[in-house]
Amino acid sequence: MDLNKISSPSFLKGLNNKQLEALAKEIRAFLIEKCSVTGGHIGPNLGVVELTIALHKAFNSPTDKLLWDVGHQAYVHKILTGRASQFDTLRQFKGLCGFPKLVESEHDEWETGHSSTSLSAAMGMAAARDIRKGKNFVVPIIGDGALTGGMALEALNHIGHEKTNMIVILNDNEMSIAPNVGALHGVLGRLRTAKEYSKAKEELERLMLKIPVLGDKLASTAERVKDSLKYLVVSGVFFEEMGFKYLGPIDGHDFEALEDTLEYAKKVNGPVLVHVITKKGKGYKPAEEDTIGTWHGTGPYKMENGEFVKSTVKGPAWSSLVAESVRKCMKEDERIVAITPAMPVGSKLEGIQKDFPHRFFDVGIAEQHAATMAAGLATQKMKPFLAIYSTFLQRAYDQVLHDIARPSLNVFIGIDRAGLVGADGETHQGVFDIAFLRHIPNMVLMMPKDENEGQHMVKTALEYNDGPIAMRYPRGNGSGVEMDAEMKTLPIGSWEVLRNGKDATILTFGTTIPMALEAAELLAAQGIDIQVVNARFIKPMDENMLHALMKKGAPILTIEEAVLQGGFGSAVLEFAADHHYQTAIDRIGIPDEFIEHGNVDQLLAEINVTTEETVKRIKALLQKQVGTV
Amino acid sequence: MDLNKISSPSFLKGLNNKQLEALAKEIRAFLIEKCSVTGGHIGPNLGVVELTIALHKAFNSPTDKLLWDVGHQAYVHKILTGRASQFDTLRQFKGLCGFPKLVESEHDEWETGHSSTSLSAAMGMAAARDIRKGKNFVVPIIGDGALTGGMALEALNHIGHEKTNMIVILNDNEMSIAPNVGALHGVLGRLRTAKEYSKAKEELERLMLKIPVLGDKLASTAERVKDSLKYLVVSGVFFEEMGFKYLGPIDGHDFEALEDTLEYAKKVNGPVLVHVITKKGKGYKPAEEDTIGTWHGTGPYKMENGEFVKSTVKGPAWSSLVAESVRKCMKEDERIVAITPAMPVGSKLEGIQKDFPHRFFDVGIAEQHAATMAAGLATQKMKPFLAIYSTFLQRAYDQVLHDIARPSLNVFIGIDRAGLVGADGETHQGVFDIAFLRHIPNMVLMMPKDENEGQHMVKTALEYNDGPIAMRYPRGNGSGVEMDAEMKTLPIGSWEVLRNGKDATILTFGTTIPMALEAAELLAAQGIDIQVVNARFIKPMDENMLHALMKKGAPILTIEEAVLQGGFGSAVLEFAADHHYQTAIDRIGIPDEFIEHGNVDQLLAEINVTTEETVKRIKALLQKQVGTV
Repeated sequence: MDLNKISSPSFLKGLNNKQLEALAKEIRAFLIEKCSVTGGHIGPNLGVVELTIALHKAFNSPTDKLLWDVGHQAYVHKILTGRASQFDTLRQFKGLCGFPKLVESEHDEWETGHSSTSLSAAMGMAAARDIRKGKNFVVPIIGDGALTGGMALEALNHIGHEKTNMIVILNDNEMSIAPNVGALHGVLGRLRTAKEYSKAKEELERLMLKIPVLGDKLASTAERVKDSLKYLVVSGVFFEEMGFKYLGPIDGHDFEALEDTLEYAKKVNGPVLVHVITKKGKGYKPAEEDTIGTWHGTGPYKMENGEFVKSTVKGPAWSSLVAESVRKCMKEDERIVAITPAMPVGSKLEGIQKDFPHRFFDVGIAEQHAATMAAGLATQKMKPFLAIYSTFLQRAYDQVLHDIARPSLNVFIGIDRAGLVGADGETHQGVFDIAFLRHIPNMVLMMPKDENEGQHMVKTALEYNDGPIAMRYPRGNGSGVEMDAEMKTLPIGSWEVLRNGKDATILTFGTTIPMALEAAELLAAQGIDIQVVNARFIKPMDENMLHALMKKGAPILTIEEAVLQGGFGSAVLEFAADHHYQTAIDRIGIPDEFIEHGNVDQLLAEINVTTEETVKRIKALLQKQVGTV
Repeated sequence: MDLNKISSPSFLKGLNNKQLEALAKEIRAFLIEKCSVTGGHIGPNLGVVELTIALHKAFNSPTDKLLWDVGHQAYVHKILTGRASQFDTLRQFKGLCGFPKLVESEHDEWETGHSSTSLSAAMGMAAARDIRKGKNFVVPIIGDGALTGGMALEALNHIGHEKTNMIVILNDNEMSIAPNVGALHGVLGRLRTAKEYSKAKEELERLMLKIPVLGDKLASTAERVKDSLKYLVVSGVFFEEMGFKYLGPIDGHDFEALEDTLEYAKKVNGPVLVHVITKKGKGYKPAEEDTIGTWHGTGPYKMENGEFVKSTVKGPAWSSLVAESVRKCMKEDERIVAITPAMPVGSKLEGIQKDFPHRFFDVGIAEQHAATMAAGLATQKMKPFLAIYSTFLQRAYDQVLHDIARPSLNVFIGIDRAGLVGADGETHQGVFDIAFLRHIPNMVLMMPKDENEGQHMVKTALEYNDGPIAMRYPRGNGSGVEMDAEMKTLPIGSWEVLRNGKDATILTFGTTIPMALEAAELLAAQGIDIQVVNARFIKPMDENMLHALMKKGAPILTIEEAVLQGGFGSAVLEFAADHHYQTAIDRIGIPDEFIEHGNVDQLLAEINVTTEETVKRIKALLQKQVGTV
């Protein structure tokens, strides 16, 4: 069938399993082809083709609510709800979002991007239904990895307590983004693989051994029982203890099993958890064979063999640069320990994991625990390095403030993917970290201008002994600058003049430095002489330099790839106000709105964080100054 | 014995159970007396007298690490570690902190205040020990309520996976702050009360019924088994599934049981959970009889009968005012639903709970889930009211940003205890909320000047339909102003001139308005004519008024009981810079440091948020202006 002609999932009701299987095959071919051009979360989506079809057949969206946790596995859902024709624009500027979006379709009931939110949202939807005495189903679909996020466990606990009608689909692919960690993973593993026979047998035997008096008398009965135990149904005791009826595990690629179980689940009163086993990357060999998460989300690839299309990058990936610099320091300093919340591959920590297995911790999708565990390590005079994406550090705001910064513990936070991240869009932009970290007392926050300064900042951070220190670095690759052979430390709070000039000063850091330098060159051609400062310490700022600049009186322009409200530019305004300087100050940065997906350059152009805008603003500042004088 | 003479817990090693019991009695009397004067968390501390003594006898602090989750139950620990003589200064300015503090004692290994952090910190300490091949014990003590916090569950999951040596003490008092909710509470309840007999019987019967072939044949055996099942040991299957060895439940007031179990726990390899049942308020009748949490934390009381010493307050408690205003609106609007993360009493939601049991949710200590559940309700066009303390809202920063504000859902966040909270101190000050909410797009943030404006703001928030809206209100009581009979709505972003004056303008809101008005009077007596504006909308600001003020050109002083970095004053600076006004602006607020415990007025004096400072700053601004002109 022509997938582009699907306008609503209702057509699924009339299809038999053979037809569903044919549809699944078509959808897989479609996804493999489309994503080979656009890139995207191909692995997770290939894993849920049958499951998504079965869900849309069993339930009536949007009356029944399907909530996709994390949301990167909603491509099949998007196809079945009339969006196949938009897949050429997937994750591109003004194109189809890679995650569910309320504004895209009435079938997208829940907007996400961050993990582990679906159960809480589902509880809200179910509560609304029950207050109104409605009858619809609420069906969150959550992965085994996302289930370890604290808020998902909070929700399980609450739902089980309220005994709310809800059908939770546990999409267990034995691997979320990286191979899973956590005791819950063990729980699932036991449910998944332990022969029902042996498990139940064990249980009964254990029970019988506990009977001190009748143990012996029962022995012969027990022997006879053993042979029949293979008929026993294993119950998911963990989930049953949490108040859920447990159904499963079932094969998530088997339409018959899916249909039978979902129809049964619909009849159960109270919360049900359906444990579905799927295979990530199913139907595409390169993705199926992935064991570490390479095919979780990808750029473009050659469809015929899964070879990734090489992008023309100059320098090393920022994540690698930082991780490798940390690894070098770990050789010299035994106190350094690395922690990641489920991103060993994304944060390029494989080298550390290999060389220092006992000083490396992947704690699962658990940013809060990761941050406070780092604090615990620091109380024992260890030097934890917490590698975390800017957008996910939002989850640990309270832990950074209350557990790390308040007692001023020496934790080094590597803030990866800081700034605009591009195709992942709105939910993943790393643009709030300056605003939410800058007001935390005792915090040091910095961003390097290039990879070489980056390695020096790593050393600076790991040798710093006066409290928390964070370094933000962007998604993608460095520019390929020459690297010093030796890492060195930078004075905390020191800025660096990159270009001298008397008419005005640009204060900026990280990714926007080239923009400032380029603008300075354009202005120089027009006879305007601009100073450019690498304001690499966002907190504390270089107060000596600021005093000198403000005494000089030339206007100042700040540029940051981060939100303007409460950001670096505001820190400069605060400094000027506190010291009663009347210097004209203007700020370029991200306005007070959420920034959608798209190529970073397109996005920056859209919000006027550009060389052209820099030139324009400098000229305006100078004109105003002339006007004033 | 003289408790004041205790310098270290080592003396406990030589005491027998009878002596320990005598000590426990003395400590109880001491606590009841001291807290009757200072106030404090008397209930939780009376509950852990024997447990704390037993822990300090079984372990060697500070080599072995005792971590008190939340930390308000560490008074006995403070007494045993040499701080009894400081109890007259408990929770007072420059006095003994009500929570563990690293700087107070080497025995305070973990600093807290917020719930559910101890397991993560313990994991960090245990990891440090194991890397160094140390041998010490790590012993977090966590309540049944705190265990439902997401980060505690993240930690359980990680510790169980790593099989780290750790002895977790679950202090189960069947009531954390309010009566507990959550399926885990059910798990504990079953462990606690279900007769081992009936539980094991049930299990065996269920198992037998699942055997389709042999079920009947076994029936008679099963009958015989029943009578002997009372000898069965019940295992804590939930915790065992999570990878912990479960020991308990044991009586937390029985020294012999405590000693036996702790000594056994010390011998176990891998993580152990010791389930200890205690009685909150034990040994003091008024506190023992408390069923709703009144005696969790108190002000001064009459020792002989537990009667609370009435403070001389004028108006209603802010929490009551807000809750009752919401309750009124709930009568008119069926879409309104109230949610609290375990603070039904603190947030004064009892009236709502009683009148609207189906539109009221206490979700347990689970701020993240609470916020996202509110978002889920809002997607269904309900009107959730989320009552949450400012300091605990920090836990839900990402959920407010990602789940509520990003899709711009209509959630009303009641930010209770905003500003300085006094005796609870550093971990509980509500001073960051402006800085962490102001940069979130789509957010409306307001603070009323008095109870009457407060009730109008509640109505404004509940009728607002353009996204999230938050209202901050202080701890304590209103000033007792006259209340309008009808609640009305305020125009979003509108400020109010409280006092006219031409020389300078003070922009402020909430608790600092009286300070501004008083300063204006003092200045008037000196011939200086000050305008005072009630800047009740912190975001969006009243831009028309700001333009008018800045065009006028008189200097502006902002005052806020919140951090200066990225706060309201910064918003005013940003506005001026964005519109190129050269108005002189100065800011009063909380400096870049954590603020300790103490009386709020003492604290404000300490950080120069005072009438005197206001007068001084206004004069300085006017002098500078004269200097400039």
